[in-house]
Amino acid sequence: MTHPEFRRDPLHNVWVVFAPDRQRRPQDFAAAVLQTGILDPFAEGNERLTPPEVHAFRKEKTKSNEPGWRVRVVPNRYPAVRIEGPLEARPEGLYDRLSGIGAHEVIIETPDGKLALEDLPVDSIAEVFASYRERILDLDKDHRFQHIYVFKNVGPSAGASLTHAHSQLVALPLVPPFVEGKLNRARDHYLVKQRSLFSDILHTEITDGTRLVADNDSYFLFCPFASRFPFELAIFPKRHHPDYVSCTPDELHDLAEILRFALQRLNVALENPGYNLLLHTAPLQRPGTQRFASARYDYSWHVEIVPRFNALAGFEIGLGSYINTVYPEQAARFLRGEEQT
Amino acid sequence: MTHPEFRRDPLHNVWVVFAPDRQRRPQDFAAAVLQTGILDPFAEGNERLTPPEVHAFRKEKTKSNEPGWRVRVVPNRYPAVRIEGPLEARPEGLYDRLSGIGAHEVIIETPDGKLALEDLPVDSIAEVFASYRERILDLDKDHRFQHIYVFKNVGPSAGASLTHAHSQLVALPLVPPFVEGKLNRARDHYLVKQRSLFSDILHTEITDGTRLVADNDSYFLFCPFASRFPFELAIFPKRHHPDYVSCTPDELHDLAEILRFALQRLNVALENPGYNLLLHTAPLQRPGTQRFASARYDYSWHVEIVPRFNALAGFEIGLGSYINTVYPEQAARFLRGEEQT
Repeated sequence: MTHPEFRRDPLHNVWVVFAPDRQRRPQDFAAAVLQTGILDPFAEGNERLTPPEVHAFRKEKTKSNEPGWRVRVVPNRYPAVRIEGPLEARPEGLYDRLSGIGAHEVIIETPDGKLALEDLPVDSIAEVFASYRERILDLDKDHRFQHIYVFKNVGPSAGASLTHAHSQLVALPLVPPFVEGKLNRARDHYLVKQRSLFSDILHTEITDGTRLVADNDSYFLFCPFASRFPFELAIFPKRHHPDYVSCTPDELHDLAEILRFALQRLNVALENPGYNLLLHTAPLQRPGTQRFASARYDYSWHVEIVPRFNALAGFEIGLGSYINTVYPEQAARFLRGEEQT
Repeated sequence: MTHPEFRRDPLHNVWVVFAPDRQRRPQDFAAAVLQTGILDPFAEGNERLTPPEVHAFRKEKTKSNEPGWRVRVVPNRYPAVRIEGPLEARPEGLYDRLSGIGAHEVIIETPDGKLALEDLPVDSIAEVFASYRERILDLDKDHRFQHIYVFKNVGPSAGASLTHAHSQLVALPLVPPFVEGKLNRARDHYLVKQRSLFSDILHTEITDGTRLVADNDSYFLFCPFASRFPFELAIFPKRHHPDYVSCTPDELHDLAEILRFALQRLNVALENPGYNLLLHTAPLQRPGTQRFASARYDYSWHVEIVPRFNALAGFEIGLGSYINTVYPEQAARFLRGEEQT
């Protein structure tokens, strides 16, 4: 069995994607070479080391897969899921199988392997966010996919395997139960209160104020009340919308601005921590996602930033609960610059 | 705010325990000293370095908190939850707070800091399991607690902070949503099928056989169909019962035997991987857990062993789904000794 496959068991209700090809990733065998950048596959001039690009923002008159790009999107060389093949779902006794079909792409955020995302000017970060949007719009045309998710791993503690600034996009043929849970809770809240859960959370945070870190024209940045990780941050848009792709150019610019601020503050407070950036948007509109048709309008796309210090241990893995050593009110004070760490 | 507290928000429905005192754990400041064992607080002769013991199996005529013990249980010096104080639950607007009341104990599995659990004779491992049982029976008397969970972290990749063989027990004033999910799925299965989900999974695994690793008089050891981690293992009892404390001395002996076998095989196949051991048992019987009164009889206590290689990354953290590079059928072949890694 070397093909990827999704599996679910009825006790845990977790979809697991089996991706045996990813065992061959370079960091499993030659981490040192890649980490030092000698063979950085994401550097300008090394375009031949990646699969052909599917999107790029480039200087005028430069060609695909050649230097001259500012942001470049390529298929992941070691994908968790495969783009080719039919989508087949079938039961196996008690269990569920689904072909490991999907897209797994890498967004190379800058040609320069020495820069972090937050080192870039706001306009360049906005182009990274615009690339996410372009790719989601394009992949939305493939009707095998039900959900698209963008994330970024920075540092070994956050699961990163390459140092060159990049994020990843996955298009999946299913809606993960975690996402379904968030949608359903937003819908249930609306059914009872006739108000958006996202608006109610923002209203609470603005009124309370102790966890608020910053805002700009389009977003609030705050430390969530039940932060799972020390210095966890959330970015909620002021204009709620289920779909990230609804963002205007101004809103992408404002997102770049507030994210850059958040990452720079984390770097000061915590000395360049490893972190994950998580971009949540509503499931795609499909016959297979009709069960979310009403829930999606009670949901808003949003961003989470989770610094990663310690490995998740048996408490977190077995209970799905978290032990956090820093109250969000304290983290927010540090991030607002009112206290030194 | 330096007191521990549980918090929940309505978007994620995850209980987070805030434990600011755990920031002062020695590994945060002096990992080197402890890791080399110079000041091993769990070694025989160093009993003064831990809080007073709450349980021990000892040689006859030896005294509490002095040498002569084989297994020793002490309160965690850096607890996630506190044993003292009233249990108060209250809303805060949209959010939920609950005092950080609970027990957090350490089971020191051997006086000898150089031995791993699986290095001990089966009878000694059975005493470790008997200690879990003793502590659960004792903590069940405290009516503030709703759920007890035992886990073990081995190696930095699995979140361990000390090398001396130990496991941990937490008694919680709530039932985590993960556990609730497993109970409810077992109940829903029974309602539809009039059969136990645990029996059905075992029946499927025995019939299929490709993921089965071993069995003895009391247990089956297998690689779950939708293993979240490479070489993940489950131990299901042949005699299903919601409560771990129902185990007889023979069943504890058999559990020690099959666990020792499992860990030794993992060590051979994977060269002493870091791992978590997770012991799941039904919630305690309380007025506050009456909603599980019927579900608990469709549930069985069980053990999971999850080797830990890579940090969980943005995919897992944001989606609650997992990317696994090894099919369980392949892992089972290695663990049965039919193939070399």
